[in-house]
Amino acid sequence: METQSQTQSPKAAFIVIGNEILSGRTQDVNVYFLANGLTKIGIRLVEVRIVPDIKEEIIHALNDVREKYDYVFTSGGIGPTHDDITTDSIASAFNKKVILNKAAEKMLQDYYVTSKLTPARLKMAQLPENCKLIYNPITAAPGFIMENVYALAGVPSIFQAMFHEIKDSLHKGALIISKSIKTSLSEGIIAEDLEDLQIKYPLVEIGSYPFLQAGSKGTELVLRSTDNHLLMQAYKELEVIIDNLKNENL
Amino acid sequence: METQSQTQSPKAAFIVIGNEILSGRTQDVNVYFLANGLTKIGIRLVEVRIVPDIKEEIIHALNDVREKYDYVFTSGGIGPTHDDITTDSIASAFNKKVILNKAAEKMLQDYYVTSKLTPARLKMAQLPENCKLIYNPITAAPGFIMENVYALAGVPSIFQAMFHEIKDSLHKGALIISKSIKTSLSEGIIAEDLEDLQIKYPLVEIGSYPFLQAGSKGTELVLRSTDNHLLMQAYKELEVIIDNLKNENL
Repeated sequence: METQSQTQSPKAAFIVIGNEILSGRTQDVNVYFLANGLTKIGIRLVEVRIVPDIKEEIIHALNDVREKYDYVFTSGGIGPTHDDITTDSIASAFNKKVILNKAAEKMLQDYYVTSKLTPARLKMAQLPENCKLIYNPITAAPGFIMENVYALAGVPSIFQAMFHEIKDSLHKGALIISKSIKTSLSEGIIAEDLEDLQIKYPLVEIGSYPFLQAGSKGTELVLRSTDNHLLMQAYKELEVIIDNLKNENL
Repeated sequence: METQSQTQSPKAAFIVIGNEILSGRTQDVNVYFLANGLTKIGIRLVEVRIVPDIKEEIIHALNDVREKYDYVFTSGGIGPTHDDITTDSIASAFNKKVILNKAAEKMLQDYYVTSKLTPARLKMAQLPENCKLIYNPITAAPGFIMENVYALAGVPSIFQAMFHEIKDSLHKGALIISKSIKTSLSEGIIAEDLEDLQIKYPLVEIGSYPFLQAGSKGTELVLRSTDNHLLMQAYKELEVIIDNLKNENL
């Protein structure tokens, strides 16, 4: 459900480039990190795609989202090995050449002693023409920005460090505040009142999430809005709804 | 990198319907589970999309992938609350009506005593015409199959139970076998030899994943193929490559 307040926030998409996620070898954690990082600065992550290490698929996903959203983030595929094809793919999507980036070369020269600066490592300084660099405080090889596309590393610690490098430069939106209530009531009991509440508060996004864990069962209700006053009003009404339903369903 | 053996496997896409993932409230675990479950039966997960609870977005994603792949799985949005719009969206994508499914109604009647079978819960028996049901051994409300689209619940325990219900009915592909080696060598040292090895073994997919954790740094090399003989050959050559590079880089 899209509410009016959310349409005013900058919107972002995230393209995860990773055979290792699609094969089930690795549990992705970058989506969760980025989703939280963007939410905290009022940018709305509205789409994630996980695509394989295939150039046409990466280009297709990029071209599908980059004109639709304010920001596109990518993770993975910017290292020195044969399966690192993100840089080439982004350059192709923008019809740009990949050229030696002198500033990136310098970063690598400063990090590696000359004997260790292999041709493969130097490949990480081959970047799309006219891109901006994203500093990598951990292993030197930079990420880069091409118009509204931000190419970050896939290794979670480096992905996170790169996001910290760029986040202050992003256009922030109104902060989305959220309040949640956990109740033992199940969704089927609360659904009708919840829908009425959603209709009454179109600027508050109301999400309902059943949970089912060892010994515990119920529903978590999450209210989100950029308008704190409306959020608190809806929250108080929800508390009353829950109390009434509990008494009726004793 | 797409190798020939993989193009022969059935292909699947997964559409995760979930504001809670995109907002960073919840760490998704269904992608990891499904990726593993499909890999084990030789089906290749080639694309994942995480989309918000917005009908047009769900329909757009569905129509983008359902003719491209053998299977499409969805998770989430099939419960009784106002934000559960997956059923409607799938029906719309297929130009089908949503109607009362008698078998689904019976499942709900058997599970709930009559007084608890609220209109909201009965909504979970409103399904696309001509769909097949996916049994839910945990909370009765079924998932459903519409042509090649499999709509599963979002709660991980129910998602997993539903996948177990359907997996024997899926067309299996050749099993993808994988072998991996962890080495302290970094990607920049091993990249060139690795590329040569990939060129020599086009039917073995070679992935390179740097790791960087407290006190430990290096590369995990993953070889995947449906051809065990080729896989073992490539693996043995990789062992030699690593030994040689270690000696050179002592």
